[in-house]
Amino acid sequence: MEQRISLITLGVADLAQARRFYEGLGWQAGMAVGDEVVFFQLNGLILSLYPLTALAHDAGVTETSSGFAGITLAHNVRDEAEVDAVLSEAERAGGRIVKPASRAEWGGYSGYSGYFADPDGHLWEVAYNPGFPLDAEGNTRLS
Amino acid sequence: MEQRISLITLGVADLAQARRFYEGLGWQAGMAVGDEVVFFQLNGLILSLYPLTALAHDAGVTETSSGFAGITLAHNVRDEAEVDAVLSEAERAGGRIVKPASRAEWGGYSGYSGYFADPDGHLWEVAYNPGFPLDAEGNTRLS
Repeated sequence: MEQRISLITLGVADLAQARRFYEGLGWQAGMAVGDEVVFFQLNGLILSLYPLTALAHDAGVTETSSGFAGITLAHNVRDEAEVDAVLSEAERAGGRIVKPASRAEWGGYSGYSGYFADPDGHLWEVAYNPGFPLDAEGNTRLS
Repeated sequence: MEQRISLITLGVADLAQARRFYEGLGWQAGMAVGDEVVFFQLNGLILSLYPLTALAHDAGVTETSSGFAGITLAHNVRDEAEVDAVLSEAERAGGRIVKPASRAEWGGYSGYSGYFADPDGHLWEVAYNPGFPLDAEGNTRLS
């Protein structure tokens, strides 16, 4: 199995609401099929919004769930001010601040991060981590 | 918020076991901090394995969870035979086949996909989807 990923699919309760939230962050949908699915082109992979029930059905699992999903997504930025700016933007777009930004220590690097939840509770960390600098294309690479 | 992602973090019950599973897929860890965290470089972003309890604590949420996480990851490949090969590889590495590969129809494209779960239940779809061809670097782009 090659060491890469193609899509992340977020199960959502209300596709139109979820789309509005991500568009409220300034994102542009690259493709959408009616009220079935919405795709956003990210850096080399695709984020897809898809009804939770359909996603569970597609995977052949029961839809019932509660509590922590056990998975988080992270959006790294170039400085601390951008952490605050993105968290504010997420809140204005209808997200929920789960953890306000605070200092963080990662392997000797002093950073700054907070978390927001999208309307379906999917957790995004917004982080400035000098140990994981972004390249010119916005990609993150282990040094 | 720029339209990109930096990391995906999978909460795991047993870091060593989870690492062995992904290494069993042929992946190579790019960085690891003792028994705290393991990073794999993917295409422009990082997959991180991190103890579930620590991840919940970091996000400031309770760790309790059950059922479907409501999020899936997908690994697209170049043909149907590779779907079968990757699912077999995942099973040999200690994964669980959640949905055996079968024909799929996506927006007029006829494809083939199945799902496996890693040792912590994180769901990966392995898919051949001619509507989402891979580029030379293994990236997936909306046409």
